[in-house]
Amino acid sequence: MLRVISTGYDGKMGRIVAETVRADENCELAFVQAYDKSKCVQDITIYEKLADCEEKGDVIIDFSNHANLDNVLGYALRTKTPIVIATTGFNDEEIERIHKASEEIPVFFSYNMSLGVNIMVKLVKEAAKLLNGFDIEIVEKHHNRKVDAPSGTAIMIANGVKEVLPESNVVNGRSGRSCKRQPGDIGISAVRGGTIVGEHDALFCGDSEVVTISHQAQSRQIFANGALAAAKFIADKESGFYNMDDMLK
Amino acid sequence: MLRVISTGYDGKMGRIVAETVRADENCELAFVQAYDKSKCVQDITIYEKLADCEEKGDVIIDFSNHANLDNVLGYALRTKTPIVIATTGFNDEEIERIHKASEEIPVFFSYNMSLGVNIMVKLVKEAAKLLNGFDIEIVEKHHNRKVDAPSGTAIMIANGVKEVLPESNVVNGRSGRSCKRQPGDIGISAVRGGTIVGEHDALFCGDSEVVTISHQAQSRQIFANGALAAAKFIADKESGFYNMDDMLK
Amino acid sequence: MLRVISTGYDGKMGRIVAETVRADENCELAFVQAYDKSKCVQDITIYEKLADCEEKGDVIIDFSNHANLDNVLGYALRTKTPIVIATTGFNDEEIERIHKASEEIPVFFSYNMSLGVNIMVKLVKEAAKLLNGFDIEIVEKHHNRKVDAPSGTAIMIANGVKEVLPESNVVNGRSGRSCKRQPGDIGISAVRGGTIVGEHDALFCGDSEVVTISHQAQSRQIFANGALAAAKFIADKESGFYNMDDMLK
Amino acid sequence: MLRVISTGYDGKMGRIVAETVRADENCELAFVQAYDKSKCVQDITIYEKLADCEEKGDVIIDFSNHANLDNVLGYALRTKTPIVIATTGFNDEEIERIHKASEEIPVFFSYNMSLGVNIMVKLVKEAAKLLNGFDIEIVEKHHNRKVDAPSGTAIMIANGVKEVLPESNVVNGRSGRSCKRQPGDIGISAVRGGTIVGEHDALFCGDSEVVTISHQAQSRQIFANGALAAAKFIADKESGFYNMDDMLK
Repeated sequence: MLRVISTGYDGKMGRIVAETVRADENCELAFVQAYDKSKCVQDITIYEKLADCEEKGDVIIDFSNHANLDNVLGYALRTKTPIVIATTGFNDEEIERIHKASEEIPVFFSYNMSLGVNIMVKLVKEAAKLLNGFDIEIVEKHHNRKVDAPSGTAIMIANGVKEVLPESNVVNGRSGRSCKRQPGDIGISAVRGGTIVGEHDALFCGDSEVVTISHQAQSRQIFANGALAAAKFIADKESGFYNMDDMLK
Repeated sequence: MLRVISTGYDGKMGRIVAETVRADENCELAFVQAYDKSKCVQDITIYEKLADCEEKGDVIIDFSNHANLDNVLGYALRTKTPIVIATTGFNDEEIERIHKASEEIPVFFSYNMSLGVNIMVKLVKEAAKLLNGFDIEIVEKHHNRKVDAPSGTAIMIANGVKEVLPESNVVNGRSGRSCKRQPGDIGISAVRGGTIVGEHDALFCGDSEVVTISHQAQSRQIFANGALAAAKFIADKESGFYNMDDMLK
Repeated sequence: MLRVISTGYDGKMGRIVAETVRADENCELAFVQAYDKSKCVQDITIYEKLADCEEKGDVIIDFSNHANLDNVLGYALRTKTPIVIATTGFNDEEIERIHKASEEIPVFFSYNMSLGVNIMVKLVKEAAKLLNGFDIEIVEKHHNRKVDAPSGTAIMIANGVKEVLPESNVVNGRSGRSCKRQPGDIGISAVRGGTIVGEHDALFCGDSEVVTISHQAQSRQIFANGALAAAKFIADKESGFYNMDDMLK
Repeated sequence: MLRVISTGYDGKMGRIVAETVRADENCELAFVQAYDKSKCVQDITIYEKLADCEEKGDVIIDFSNHANLDNVLGYALRTKTPIVIATTGFNDEEIERIHKASEEIPVFFSYNMSLGVNIMVKLVKEAAKLLNGFDIEIVEKHHNRKVDAPSGTAIMIANGVKEVLPESNVVNGRSGRSCKRQPGDIGISAVRGGTIVGEHDALFCGDSEVVTISHQAQSRQIFANGALAAAKFIADKESGFYNMDDMLK
């Protein structure tokens, strides 16, 4: 039984992680960390500050806030607990502290915790190698509150293509500009509407055929699933810095 | 048996129309008009200039070139033959001549002869009425030689939405510009690749659900099918100016 | 401010309805009904039995259990409160009681509370009328725990087609049976996998073109949204029996 | 300049191959073989029987009829010309003769000449390895005249999955049978309608996410393209038996 510590329980992702741990028959929730206890259910042990926390677990999943890093990383280092860091928005100094911690404990770090998205990128790279001369286009769809376009995942996919086809050139949209497609273009289109969680299509368009690789996220659950998979992966590893490529090998 | 005259037989669409007429058990090909006879098969009667042509048919399908209008319309008026004009690229003066001809003979005129596309536009308008408050986005996909973006059909769809929701506002792409979606936006994205004949999706994105109306063209055959349906529709009509809305009533 | 009473708060849908009411700026939650109070948060007024409940609201949304009908309907009749019944699984005697109640109070009843699904069915019927001679196929996708196939919604769509084209004939799958498609067939295919909430495609396949009308559900939120829309719709209506067609007119 | 001999020019595929060769700037059409010369255009050299044919080319693409094998293979062996065999429907004795010929000349043989389909199968196998525990479903769509279901390509995809996951079990459709999905099932659904050339989706459905790999054929041109790619591949090879896996390595 893997005893998991989950942080940021007063946030949406922290709560999903805690529920995911509880629903997994091979895991149990050691305790959670949260600042706002009013959002919490009654039968969970909650700590705000972990400095004096004497309870222990096998692995930490941190889906909280970059401002919480000291609190969480301090506990991890003191208790030698492996940690999966799924929080985003770190500055350079914080990233450096994370790397430094990996000298003493196992640290898993990724900008996108979804297994499906990471596997999609691997498949797109394989397809880009095989489908020589096909035109590559990316279409991503997200909810109407998302401001940035294209999405970070669309950029991740395009960068995957560029690793294989370095001559490629991202073209952001075409509608209204009427520019003719050039060989090597990677067109990226961004659709925004309603509450779409996240959909990404990579199209490989050839002479009389199209091969498409798609990822559809149904909920943020995928990030909790990926984080828990990562937690199982690093729980018994040596100290070091791990990412998705290590896990998907 | 409807005896159909087809023009522009030396062009791709003219040839498809002629083959479509021949494949229809209720139609036969009266004769064709073409300038370049080298591209023609041997068992078809071909005329270049129709000024002296004594043969007759029940209806003309003109899928040739706007420069051929005099030749074709002159014959139609002289022989009182109903005409379907599927040729594009007319200037204002030519459009006026077409309208004038409709005082003497039945004239069917449309910028897009595909039944499916015209029906899609009707469905999109109905959906825009019913799906109140849903975000509307259009994604169109075409081959890599198409220069204009968005496609004329995408504009036709957006205009259909505007008839129902006049406050709507077309936004051409978002990728790379990171502008937040505004209520009333109709986002249009254009994908270009390979030999895609033409695909159009109209998405209605609401809270936790998406309704999509799509049209996929497999070949230019759809324009010939629509033109032949129009030919059957006007063959026995009074003189007048007809379009797709008349036929789909 | 519409004061909404929500039942079945100890169930998933009842909880979603309560949260949806709270998130709507024009509504507030009067109180909820639930049997298992351990699943409830602390700041909500909860009643088990409504027989002695003196609190009132403007409209009831019942998403509980058919065994709870007496409890809920008794309160609605005693307090003359309009009621939206989104619960399923009623027997004939219960259905009759619901109809009888509608002589004294407004009752809204539907087997599928999703606005999008009901609008999709309307669009499919319109398309079936217009796309004369096109082959109609339905593909539905659901999670891997769903036992029945095809889904109730797929049957609803097929029944909608049959209203327009009474000669149609449902064919459940073809794979492995190699039966040739007959004109008038409505093929239905059922895909099962993972946690797919619910996707339905109605394809209209013609000569060289396909028109598709699709609905994608992202979560059960759509049923709560439809129920709340229905609640707003009947709150000030005369007594009577109302359904989705009345609301979408 | 690769001089290509094309057979079966009186059939649809033979004609497409000949046109594809002519459109390729690195190829030219040496001559064609056909029995029905009435279907042929005037500027092409046509032979019926190749027994006395003195003209030569660099490679043969055979897209004719299994009854034509003697005629074609006899010429290939006599003139030591590499041959791509894209014809289907061979009996065991004919298959043996093809293998025997490969001892003297390079022979490329495949049941499916589409590059895209073969690459899709490779990607599906890769995905099946990586997406451990995901439910796999296949949906294929074809025109309404296709009798067999599921398609040969769908079976090819399912067999690819089985190579990676030998415990898998094909389930042909579910609609109307209401059988619950079992782990390891590969559900196959067949859609038939209109003139759809061929579409195949392989869905990998996990917890809250779906990865899809799709192939869409726009026309039979893809088989000619694959055959010409194979012709270029074997034109300078040693005698031997080659297939798609050799080419896509």
